[in-house]
Amino acid sequence: MDDFEKAVYSVRFLSADAVEKAKSGHPGTPMALAGIAVDIFTRHLRYDPKEPGWPNRDRFVLSCGHASMLLYSMLHLAGYDLSLDELKNFRQWGSKTPGHPEHGLAPGVETTTGPLGQGVGNAVGFALAGKLAGARLNESGSSVIDYRVFALASDGDLMEGVASEASSIAGHLGLDNLIVVYDDNKITIDGSTNLAFSEDVGKRYEAYGWFVQHVDGLKPDEVRAALDKAVANKGKPSLIVAKTIIGIGLPTRAGTSKAHGMAATQPEIDGAKNAAGWTLEPFYVAPEARALFERRAAENRKVRDAWEKLVAGLPADRADAYKKLTTRFVPDNVFDELLAVAKGLKPDATRNLASTIEQKVAALVPSLVGGAADLNESTKTDVKDSASVKRGEFGGKNLHFGIREHGMAAINNGLALSGFFIPLGSSFLIFTDYCRPSIRLSALMEQQVLHVFTHDSVFLGEDGPTHQPIEQLASLRLIPNLDVVRPADAMECAAAWTHALTRRHGPTLIALSRQKVPALERAADFDPKVMFDGAYVLADAKDPEITIVATGSEVHVAVDAKKKLEAKGKRVRVVSAPCWEAFLRKPKDAQRAVLGKGAKIVTVEAGRTLGWSGALGGDGLHIGIDRFGASAPWEKIAEELGFTGDAVAARISAEL
Amino acid sequence: MDDFEKAVYSVRFLSADAVEKAKSGHPGTPMALAGIAVDIFTRHLRYDPKEPGWPNRDRFVLSCGHASMLLYSMLHLAGYDLSLDELKNFRQWGSKTPGHPEHGLAPGVETTTGPLGQGVGNAVGFALAGKLAGARLNESGSSVIDYRVFALASDGDLMEGVASEASSIAGHLGLDNLIVVYDDNKITIDGSTNLAFSEDVGKRYEAYGWFVQHVDGLKPDEVRAALDKAVANKGKPSLIVAKTIIGIGLPTRAGTSKAHGMAATQPEIDGAKNAAGWTLEPFYVAPEARALFERRAAENRKVRDAWEKLVAGLPADRADAYKKLTTRFVPDNVFDELLAVAKGLKPDATRNLASTIEQKVAALVPSLVGGAADLNESTKTDVKDSASVKRGEFGGKNLHFGIREHGMAAINNGLALSGFFIPLGSSFLIFTDYCRPSIRLSALMEQQVLHVFTHDSVFLGEDGPTHQPIEQLASLRLIPNLDVVRPADAMECAAAWTHALTRRHGPTLIALSRQKVPALERAADFDPKVMFDGAYVLADAKDPEITIVATGSEVHVAVDAKKKLEAKGKRVRVVSAPCWEAFLRKPKDAQRAVLGKGAKIVTVEAGRTLGWSGALGGDGLHIGIDRFGASAPWEKIAEELGFTGDAVAARISAEL
Repeated sequence: MDDFEKAVYSVRFLSADAVEKAKSGHPGTPMALAGIAVDIFTRHLRYDPKEPGWPNRDRFVLSCGHASMLLYSMLHLAGYDLSLDELKNFRQWGSKTPGHPEHGLAPGVETTTGPLGQGVGNAVGFALAGKLAGARLNESGSSVIDYRVFALASDGDLMEGVASEASSIAGHLGLDNLIVVYDDNKITIDGSTNLAFSEDVGKRYEAYGWFVQHVDGLKPDEVRAALDKAVANKGKPSLIVAKTIIGIGLPTRAGTSKAHGMAATQPEIDGAKNAAGWTLEPFYVAPEARALFERRAAENRKVRDAWEKLVAGLPADRADAYKKLTTRFVPDNVFDELLAVAKGLKPDATRNLASTIEQKVAALVPSLVGGAADLNESTKTDVKDSASVKRGEFGGKNLHFGIREHGMAAINNGLALSGFFIPLGSSFLIFTDYCRPSIRLSALMEQQVLHVFTHDSVFLGEDGPTHQPIEQLASLRLIPNLDVVRPADAMECAAAWTHALTRRHGPTLIALSRQKVPALERAADFDPKVMFDGAYVLADAKDPEITIVATGSEVHVAVDAKKKLEAKGKRVRVVSAPCWEAFLRKPKDAQRAVLGKGAKIVTVEAGRTLGWSGALGGDGLHIGIDRFGASAPWEKIAEELGFTGDAVAARISAEL
Repeated sequence: MDDFEKAVYSVRFLSADAVEKAKSGHPGTPMALAGIAVDIFTRHLRYDPKEPGWPNRDRFVLSCGHASMLLYSMLHLAGYDLSLDELKNFRQWGSKTPGHPEHGLAPGVETTTGPLGQGVGNAVGFALAGKLAGARLNESGSSVIDYRVFALASDGDLMEGVASEASSIAGHLGLDNLIVVYDDNKITIDGSTNLAFSEDVGKRYEAYGWFVQHVDGLKPDEVRAALDKAVANKGKPSLIVAKTIIGIGLPTRAGTSKAHGMAATQPEIDGAKNAAGWTLEPFYVAPEARALFERRAAENRKVRDAWEKLVAGLPADRADAYKKLTTRFVPDNVFDELLAVAKGLKPDATRNLASTIEQKVAALVPSLVGGAADLNESTKTDVKDSASVKRGEFGGKNLHFGIREHGMAAINNGLALSGFFIPLGSSFLIFTDYCRPSIRLSALMEQQVLHVFTHDSVFLGEDGPTHQPIEQLASLRLIPNLDVVRPADAMECAAAWTHALTRRHGPTLIALSRQKVPALERAADFDPKVMFDGAYVLADAKDPEITIVATGSEVHVAVDAKKKLEAKGKRVRVVSAPCWEAFLRKPKDAQRAVLGKGAKIVTVEAGRTLGWSGALGGDGLHIGIDRFGASAPWEKIAEELGFTGDAVAARISAEL
């Protein structure tokens, strides 16, 4: 056995041993892919375990996150701060080695994977980020950013639509810094892939415009040759279809679904170790394996040193661009800048107001890139003075995702994780349903991703119930660590953008109206900062008996209702509540002060009342929409569904 | 101009006129696809406008639902009950002609489309339903069910991952009764498809195992030849890539994105009409067009008559099978039958309890078919004494969707819409996020689809936060017309299955535990029917001062907490609440009686508290999980997150 083989067996058995100790997990795929992973890590991957955030490191993505022990084993051998004890603590409370890799726990875990297909999308995002950053930072052949992305994907990853969408985009853009190895093992949880998966994956990827190779994934020579070709290939992303045997070496379980999602059993592991002439000692790492990785570390240190010199020698303008991009610079006075834009705007749909403000954001924040899932004409999120990103032309800020919301959001997670960009994705609010798994992951990974969704209520009008969000605002507010902001006018749009840009450890979703909304009057002494409280008194009354809380395009309806009620002698406060999450983070006392002690609460929002109200009752009158929408001009819908100042005032008079 | 051409122009201008009158909509695609649609309707499609539910009718699916006026124009000409006045009322409140086609409004609209890709998934479902029904009802060459499915799809449909997933399944199963025409017009809302879509779609579909043809979609001869070949082709689904020009005939907008999503303008329409030598009169239908469709109607009447004779002559057993399948028979005593099974079961995970009960369901309900997105080993939803559905073998009940949750749910919508089946789809609860758009459409279309999702809380354990639902129960409860049932034991599993089988006008989602749950004690006089109230008193106390409401695997925790609190002299009622929606449909008085007047409410569920509580406060103590989960054995998670009887009792003592 040479050092390479010893490394491979070390990884295989580390993985199997850890799963066995946890009595749960996936041993078979790490065993099958160990050789490919060792080849990538020891012959190709540029990394520095002491500096996991090195901007130009190659990215390694384990899209088949259930094979997490493969990644943990590799990171341990590669010298990252992940001890053998952590490997022994696999899948336990408080460990750095959870069942699926979680970004932010073990260093070197580039992204959180497990929900299948997402890692492929993230890998496309990483690759795109490398191209975008390179176009901004490289000059005359220099290689400030020229990293490559290596991803391992399973059958499941490539069955998922999100991977199809992202792969089509990668082919379209010719992301030749992306290499995906597909573990073609013909086995899934339920048995043979023949049950449901007989397509020609390689041909499909050729159709996407990828460079496709087929190898025996258990023959090191074939794997090496294919990886070398893929790295050298220009103009296309690479797919290497690698035939493997799941649980290779296990005496009876190899090549069966029993090697997939459960501990292999000690006799099986011992049998495999005996057959390989390996020690039965659990968690054994061959010294030759460590030596192999140390040699790679020495090579990588040279690469890193050369790179550091390159960056240290950058001319001032490039150095500034580098610093701004790698810190995702946002100026301290961004709110003042955006407010100044907002103050010059006439009443309009909030999508248009936000769009104008975004132009300023793009000028202030070099890290902002993004686009729409083919609805830019409606979401208005393009940066007007910047180019579209195309194959070979990565200098622009505008991305075109096609009609692929899920791929968009998964790619944006990769763009954010790259460390260079604050990505923006946009579509209609209803289509958050199409990309919800990726939105959730942006929240779980605490990534600064901007989800900008327009047409945020039934008041989009004629497109009808298939396009009209009813439950989407409420359901998005349920995702932990996602802030949902629904601004009511230009000033709130400026606050929403500022909120999103300064919120560094989580995604923000901005919901915007299709329809025009009137200007809101504000008191002369209005302090704009109060908007960051999430809910604030917009229009007050002395000793209010009723407080109407509203969001977005319903705030002006609340203001109108207040007028109608005041004409009848009622004392009414209006609270604009653009962001629940910010409001609910305030102390209870502060919340109560805004809502008005003793005032009866009325909420007005064109969406589900559940969430505003509790399921089992509670105080307050909640005016919303608890049915599917309807196709008609929006003013007609507002009238029919009771979203006018008159109708709201009448309900309050009748029901409070 | 021959009759065919007159029909084509009638359709083109009906569509353009209606969009123009509404001043909103999509004129260009109906204009481009009119010729293809007329050819399908007048040379291939078997239908009876007087009997839109004829079981063996061919299905026509407009996946690009934004081109709705094409469908409405066709249905009008084909003689369905859809008047010219309805066409003139396009996109207006209360019309049968909303912006996107909605199943249940105009007769002949087979499915609700608009959210892109869904129609392709539905079409695969229709085709699969035809194969499944044929295998059950046809004998010795008879053709009780041998309908074909014709679908029109746009660029956007084929970019969406859901269509990729469903198409791969269709190829795998060799659904040769499915013909999809792809409108390859190179234009999307944002401009040229070159912005984001340069893949070789035909090659991709060949990779899926489809029979692919390329035609000029504006040349009737080419379209005819291709459709004839597709209809005759055996063993594979067909894709016809039809190059078209969006808005064909419009003087300046043809072939541009301006012909896509806005009214064409009167001068453009007049220009097109003049160039075609057509009258400028709006909503004009050429008599020759009507004559053409009437000739087709006469042909179809013969087909229908022959079919009626065939069905009338079925032998008794086949006639019975036919009746049961077309009525989706569920025996009246189904609850008693399932309760009898439940009573024999020992405590177990609710997924296992539900699985055993499902075996009985499968024996009682011939329409039940379904399966998992490659998690059958975990969701346990296979019917044990039935075969897997495979290419050429459609007699079984078990479907294998692969790791394609979205495709699964879209296909199941088609299976339900077919009228023959009560389809079941299953995966882990977290992956409802992957198929949420299709779940929503099952609710919007009021289809009886069973969504059976297991691993319904953090107590799935080691797989960790990527797989642990936190917000999913709450967010699913937000979808109008979806009933979410989370049973606590075998009896509640029997009730959940009964609820799902007898709820004819909407989907039911059953959420099941991975972990074992203890048996619940019930009073000797317990009336099982009370479970259908959605929430009911499981364990009472005299004059309760505290009512603990819990669901699913947390009910036994509530029961345990009750014991602990009673030891301290508290009077505690436990309410099991398997289905909010059913409970909230009860009169308020009945709800209050269950919750206990005067009792303080405590809710216990391993998920978000928002929804149980209102955002702005309200009564009650809500014990839940408002953070992401963690990877560890489930008992450890329960202890750490306070989901033990002791911990719940302690919080109640401390906080109430």
